[in-house]
Amino acid sequence: MKVVILGCSRVGAMLATWLAKEGNEVVVIDCQESSFLRLPKEANIKKILGMGIEHDTLKRAGIDNTDVFLALTNSDNTNIAAAQLAQQKFKVPKVISRVYDPQRAKAFEELGLRIICPTVMMVEKFQELLKSK
Amino acid sequence: MKVVILGCSRVGAMLATWLAKEGNEVVVIDCQESSFLRLPKEANIKKILGMGIEHDTLKRAGIDNTDVFLALTNSDNTNIAAAQLAQQKFKVPKVISRVYDPQRAKAFEELGLRIICPTVMMVEKFQELLKSK
Repeated sequence: MKVVILGCSRVGAMLATWLAKEGNEVVVIDCQESSFLRLPKEANIKKILGMGIEHDTLKRAGIDNTDVFLALTNSDNTNIAAAQLAQQKFKVPKVISRVYDPQRAKAFEELGLRIICPTVMMVEKFQELLKSK
Repeated sequence: MKVVILGCSRVGAMLATWLAKEGNEVVVIDCQESSFLRLPKEANIKKILGMGIEHDTLKRAGIDNTDVFLALTNSDNTNIAAAQLAQQKFKVPKVISRVYDPQRAKAFEELGLRIICPTVMMVEKFQELLKSK
């Protein structure tokens, strides 16, 4: 499986490392060189320095023949825009984005994007813990 | 149930609103007045402006007779320090903190704190989605 991950955030770096270990072809895009320090040195991961909402950057990451695209920067807007490009323009079969704002998450889910909202996940987790004794 | 929430973050505000609706006595502490704008105007929630790692602020929030303390600022260090105070000094029966850094989360869990790590939760959620077709 070929996976392109936008954003070498903590979650991005952990998933990239896991996916590479599992034998997948992994490319990580970030606009800050220092973010790549989160990746283990020995990991077989391709690093692309650039903006994930630019066609050129996505092309350099090999978006044309990727199976999975994960949008994991810390910016909701960047993740939404990049996911839309990956899904609609480059026809990537599986696209998932992180969106912190619950309202934007809902709105873009209704437009057909696959979204994980950490805010909602956290609220639900705390609710579960508070309901249990 | 009396609940003190440190941090009127998105998650903090959503939980405060839910808990107040459920009929609990809710106090929210934040060091920025503007954070309280996340709370609905009609919600019956006490707001305390101050630093959650200061005894005085916690006292003003009524920490002495609270049942639950949730540490939900965006700073791991603040959450850990405040949770330790609430648990060890003020003997709050139920204390739960959000800690983003997985290594710190693990270390302080081993010291007896109850911690939710959004980073680990997100990684697990994405792993689950990537394993499914």
